[in-house]
Amino acid sequence: MNETSEKLDTKELVGEGNKPLISTRAVTMQASPLRKLAATAEERKRKGIKVYHLNIGQPDLPTDPVVFETIRNIDHLTLAYAPSAGIIPALSAWKNYFAQVGIHFDESEMVITTGGSEAIIFAMFAVCDNDDEIIVFEPFYTNYNGFATIANVNLRPVPLSISNGFHLPPSSEIENYITEKTRGILINNPSNPTGTIYSREELQVVVDVVKKHNLFLLSDEVYREFAYDAKFHSVMSFPEIRENAILLDSCSKRFNVCGARIGVIASHNKEVIQSAFKFGMARLSVATIEQHAMIPLLNSPEKFVQPIVQEFKRRRDILYDYLKEIPGITYYKPEGAFYIVIGLPVKDSEHFAKWLIEEFEDRKETALIAPAQGFYATPGKGFNEIRIAYTLNEVELRRSLEIIKFALEAYRK
Amino acid sequence: MNETSEKLDTKELVGEGNKPLISTRAVTMQASPLRKLAATAEERKRKGIKVYHLNIGQPDLPTDPVVFETIRNIDHLTLAYAPSAGIIPALSAWKNYFAQVGIHFDESEMVITTGGSEAIIFAMFAVCDNDDEIIVFEPFYTNYNGFATIANVNLRPVPLSISNGFHLPPSSEIENYITEKTRGILINNPSNPTGTIYSREELQVVVDVVKKHNLFLLSDEVYREFAYDAKFHSVMSFPEIRENAILLDSCSKRFNVCGARIGVIASHNKEVIQSAFKFGMARLSVATIEQHAMIPLLNSPEKFVQPIVQEFKRRRDILYDYLKEIPGITYYKPEGAFYIVIGLPVKDSEHFAKWLIEEFEDRKETALIAPAQGFYATPGKGFNEIRIAYTLNEVELRRSLEIIKFALEAYRK
Repeated sequence: MNETSEKLDTKELVGEGNKPLISTRAVTMQASPLRKLAATAEERKRKGIKVYHLNIGQPDLPTDPVVFETIRNIDHLTLAYAPSAGIIPALSAWKNYFAQVGIHFDESEMVITTGGSEAIIFAMFAVCDNDDEIIVFEPFYTNYNGFATIANVNLRPVPLSISNGFHLPPSSEIENYITEKTRGILINNPSNPTGTIYSREELQVVVDVVKKHNLFLLSDEVYREFAYDAKFHSVMSFPEIRENAILLDSCSKRFNVCGARIGVIASHNKEVIQSAFKFGMARLSVATIEQHAMIPLLNSPEKFVQPIVQEFKRRRDILYDYLKEIPGITYYKPEGAFYIVIGLPVKDSEHFAKWLIEEFEDRKETALIAPAQGFYATPGKGFNEIRIAYTLNEVELRRSLEIIKFALEAYRK
Repeated sequence: MNETSEKLDTKELVGEGNKPLISTRAVTMQASPLRKLAATAEERKRKGIKVYHLNIGQPDLPTDPVVFETIRNIDHLTLAYAPSAGIIPALSAWKNYFAQVGIHFDESEMVITTGGSEAIIFAMFAVCDNDDEIIVFEPFYTNYNGFATIANVNLRPVPLSISNGFHLPPSSEIENYITEKTRGILINNPSNPTGTIYSREELQVVVDVVKKHNLFLLSDEVYREFAYDAKFHSVMSFPEIRENAILLDSCSKRFNVCGARIGVIASHNKEVIQSAFKFGMARLSVATIEQHAMIPLLNSPEKFVQPIVQEFKRRRDILYDYLKEIPGITYYKPEGAFYIVIGLPVKDSEHFAKWLIEEFEDRKETALIAPAQGFYATPGKGFNEIRIAYTLNEVELRRSLEIIKFALEAYRK
């Protein structure tokens, strides 16, 4: 993520006049690829056009009232710093949650983090020095780029293909990307942006590579329960990588509490957790009230998670069923999470997405979609793909897919 | 903060057996210097000894009930992601707060952060590339070391002296520490750990150095209102460094809401704020509920801050008055914040602090103090100094100082 060769150019760009220059890493830090399109969407809304947001991973569902009840019942006298690793009842609740999905951690093997984001950043800090490398499978969650810039880590993307639903390649292909600077492999299972769930056999391949090359395996499992057809397997179910596996998790999606910012980093590797704890001490603590608010959810996950997962399964089915009505697209059946990457019959999906939000309308409605280029690190990859987040209700989802269908017809004329 | 020469040694230390090694930066990342002493304090409490905590910056005062009332009245349906720069009403509240202390920012010139900690880290990211340098005045807030490790920045400490109450040196001395890698100067005013407030003339010296060398001035002003005798001046009151100044702030201390983790980075330098925003986008958002909870405080700061400041002024007076009764110590009148650094008539204040918490008792009571070495980066500095946080009530504060007096007498025998 460091583009040192661009240092002079970029610095000159921002360094006009007599004022100090920002850093090269700040210049090269990616902005959200969707920001400009989102701004255009707001303009379009002001002109009376309804915009369906297929671009964001913020579910439209209500948060369970127990969250707000718990918050209302907090009767602290002082809103004091929490311990840096998290408050004990929240750590115990994470332990209970994990036990209920077959994963066993002690409280001492976890550090509660400000969202899954901080968990990933802490893991990168813990395993990589400057310019060390982490292997990812491409397309990948776009913010991994930002975390890598923050942690001064270089991501090495192993390409996946829509032709097999973005499943993993054989070990020989993964090993091609290992260098002397490789410190770990980062997977997101079930995957954002592809919705792919890795089978036990696929995971075994990664586990064997990790073990053979003595790497860390960073596993972002925030969509764990969003598994519709395929069975989900955690990296924690492979005892041979007990010291290599680092679990990165978050309440955000499965409990629909994205705004709480409560995640966790967990590992049986004591040095890793001790490291995460030291990075945690520097930022003092995670918001106290939100830690309390997550406790009832984590202690009884099944009852809160299942309604959400069932709703998304229904939407996945609606989506998958509708896609056959859109001519010329390439797709597969996404097995989990709430995303899909679709190949469009266009040359440049970014241009199409821009045109869709800037110019197209059908009965005063249009849609905002995410061009897939933002989920690739390799230049030129994903040029004709988009990511759809099916975080809309049934009626809106159907209508937004219809809009894409009509738009593609109009665009290709 | 990078100690590359130690790379092999440290890696060998943790790399026994067939498991992957954590990073050198994780190994060299400082743990809180107080952690071991705090653990001893807990042991001592279990043995029936009362421990007065003079070591932590967590005030004992109650948080204003309006915080909890606001939280109870939040009626969101979904606990959704906040915008990455912060929710609009919280940004407007920060704008209102700043205006009431004579500082003028637009909402677009601020990014709300997870505590002041994240604000400082974002500022370091924005102005420094790897191994760039930031000048600090020593002793300094110990977590600046951790932030520097996270940001891969080297802190260059300019020594201050207890003999003049830790006031700033002339510009020639500051300039001695400027190298071609220096990107900024970081000040904490009023200061943790010294309680020193920099006069307008002192700040002018720093401002002139910053301007002359085209540096950034990062100013951590979280104790702004804790100014008892001396008048506080913000770096934002120096228009000549409009493009150089970066303000780092937090609700934690002035509103006694340390557990809320709501801070802000603010600057008129558009590139700096744009950078902070990009780093903010990677971590998605700051906890939504706490942003709401801070709004009433930020909109009417005077009424919430003044009772807290008056209480700490009273404690400062009690502390200062009591210190003359402790023979052999070196001290000065701290002008702000709620800390003081005291020189003890001992060879090694860390040894004394350890002995105090491990062995000493007076009527089954003892005290936990912070050896000042943790606030210095230069080895050997601060060896006979301690930091006291006067976050105890009047009665406890007097008693804990009495314990230190008795302990010093016993220790020196």
